[in-house]
Amino acid sequence: MQETQTSSAAPQRIKSRGLEGVVALDTEVSKIDGQKGLLIYRGYDIDDLASNTRFEEVAYLLWKGQLPNQQQLDELNAQLRAERALPPFVLDLLRQAPEDANPMAVLQTAVASLALFDSEADDMSPEANYRKSVRLTARIPTIIAAYDRLRKGQEPVAPLDRGSTAFNFVYMLNGEEPGEQAERVFDAALVLHAEHGLNASTFTARVIGSTLSDMYSAIAGAIGALKGPLHGGANIEVMKMLLEIDSSGADAAQYVKEKLDRKEKIMGFGHRVYKTFDPRARILRETSEDLAEERGQRKWYDLSVQIMDTVKAEKNLDPNVDFFSASVYYMLGIDTDLYTPIFALARITGWTAHLLEQWEDNRLIRPSADYVGKMDLTVTPIKQR
Amino acid sequence: MQETQTSSAAPQRIKSRGLEGVVALDTEVSKIDGQKGLLIYRGYDIDDLASNTRFEEVAYLLWKGQLPNQQQLDELNAQLRAERALPPFVLDLLRQAPEDANPMAVLQTAVASLALFDSEADDMSPEANYRKSVRLTARIPTIIAAYDRLRKGQEPVAPLDRGSTAFNFVYMLNGEEPGEQAERVFDAALVLHAEHGLNASTFTARVIGSTLSDMYSAIAGAIGALKGPLHGGANIEVMKMLLEIDSSGADAAQYVKEKLDRKEKIMGFGHRVYKTFDPRARILRETSEDLAEERGQRKWYDLSVQIMDTVKAEKNLDPNVDFFSASVYYMLGIDTDLYTPIFALARITGWTAHLLEQWEDNRLIRPSADYVGKMDLTVTPIKQR
Repeated sequence: MQETQTSSAAPQRIKSRGLEGVVALDTEVSKIDGQKGLLIYRGYDIDDLASNTRFEEVAYLLWKGQLPNQQQLDELNAQLRAERALPPFVLDLLRQAPEDANPMAVLQTAVASLALFDSEADDMSPEANYRKSVRLTARIPTIIAAYDRLRKGQEPVAPLDRGSTAFNFVYMLNGEEPGEQAERVFDAALVLHAEHGLNASTFTARVIGSTLSDMYSAIAGAIGALKGPLHGGANIEVMKMLLEIDSSGADAAQYVKEKLDRKEKIMGFGHRVYKTFDPRARILRETSEDLAEERGQRKWYDLSVQIMDTVKAEKNLDPNVDFFSASVYYMLGIDTDLYTPIFALARITGWTAHLLEQWEDNRLIRPSADYVGKMDLTVTPIKQR
Repeated sequence: MQETQTSSAAPQRIKSRGLEGVVALDTEVSKIDGQKGLLIYRGYDIDDLASNTRFEEVAYLLWKGQLPNQQQLDELNAQLRAERALPPFVLDLLRQAPEDANPMAVLQTAVASLALFDSEADDMSPEANYRKSVRLTARIPTIIAAYDRLRKGQEPVAPLDRGSTAFNFVYMLNGEEPGEQAERVFDAALVLHAEHGLNASTFTARVIGSTLSDMYSAIAGAIGALKGPLHGGANIEVMKMLLEIDSSGADAAQYVKEKLDRKEKIMGFGHRVYKTFDPRARILRETSEDLAEERGQRKWYDLSVQIMDTVKAEKNLDPNVDFFSASVYYMLGIDTDLYTPIFALARITGWTAHLLEQWEDNRLIRPSADYVGKMDLTVTPIKQR
């Protein structure tokens, strides 16, 4: 088939293991300035967006390049409401999935299966691809919540015909409408996780999309990449640490110092991009304190701050977005192994925005490899091997 | 989470849209010399392998770096036999999939779902990953054949406890054991499609694998990339052309000339890598003539040769591997929309070999992007937008 690879006689040939330092494409979706601690979506600072917009507005912004007016937002919310319910096949698949499966593997399977029941799955028009972006954003929360209930022996809770993505997700998960603060904090977490440049999962989506394969295929691939511990998963480790300190009754500062003495890593600190405070961590810290107050549950927040202060004093490292999202999700009653699926629930907007951008001016993404293996072998008959 | 991206202050910064001309990694799996028309798997020329080895030997070679002796091959064949049957969940999923679904979307869903029933799915030891490579190679043919029968209202045919991958696939598809020539030709097609360097699907598998995500996640992503018309799918177009010429009663040479006069592309010719005869096309041409003789069905072969001669005379272009695989698959009674799934059936060996190699010395694969969008916008209250 049309496999293409740069010939070894290509004029320009640059080698970079892991593609570090190689710019693969231009994007108008987001910018990260690690030196200044800035994260920009479509020209807007993440602080501004987290304070003044909701997740659905940010989704629209990422897809369309501008914030929606009231009518556009109402339309999007209506579309999301109309699309939240799952096709019976997908619900049945979740019902039959083993209760001890990796939720990311379940999510990948379920998202891939959505293509089977979408007559627009292979329609590559920009309009159809926009509708699929909305559809995926509507359905991923339902998939995660339904599987979580089913694996606990509970019936899934159908989405309501009102309320935001954040509201419906917490409602479908717990069967109870979230408090105002809970919805607000979760919504902010979704805004903060919606987009983050060309990381491994977004890059995966664009590589798959660049073959002109469909959106479901590409998103299933992105979910596969996010599943990897080198990409998603750090906030699970943060929560494990918080729970360990709490259950052992240890002093948080002492615990951190001993861990550092043993040359062990404290999860949730430092970032290869941000050389200063991750702006997302700062915002989540504030909102998580509000949630702690609402819940009358300051423990996890206070513990987090003690750890943060100790790591700053000992290693001069600042927390990243994972550090405060751990206790936020925990306070919302979310199981730790759903933290990465929830990342996907937010990032679906960034992934699909990147795919829409990729297809505006598509070019196959394919680097080449250097062969460093054996040469000139000849097959020996099997009896003589 | 641990998303990483090169800071804009990184010392070396190279830009290459689509990563053309960029070498992302070293590999010992395969080498393509487009100038000389050579394809090398692990040091062995593809001609030598296609003439003197079977698909299972090539799979072992790709995974282990050397050809198996008789005992090693017997062991692999026993493992493949033991793993061919599908978990009931997967069979049930195929049973409930719509009959008009894209078979590649079905394959991606089914492969992702295999993880849910493999207790080793998240075991990243080299031993477990080797076993999963064998398991995927065993099960993908069963998935494709079962879905094809189910969508036609037929019951799936269980694999036999004997015979090769090629034998079992044709048997499970048609419910009849293939003739010797049919098995041999299909086996050769599998050998020829097993591996082809860092194309878009293999690259996708390695990008996902580089996050230390599991094999099923990475292969589901690779299947997504292969689904794209810029990657897989050209032999479907070749077959459409053969059928069109046949049904219209047109003269093949005349048909081709008219098409070229209208500046239309003849599918299955030319290759961005091979500047001379694609070695795989040469081998498939020979074996497809043998099959045509066995079937007493020279029509498609003769038609193919007429087209090939005309394109050579008119445009000095040689056929690629897709050109002759089209008529081979057609003669084997395989529906055209299964040609890309069959590509996956063979390429699963190369994909998994690349993943095993990736994990031997892992490094996250992540290029960066240049932000070329707007800056310094501030959120206007929604009522004023």
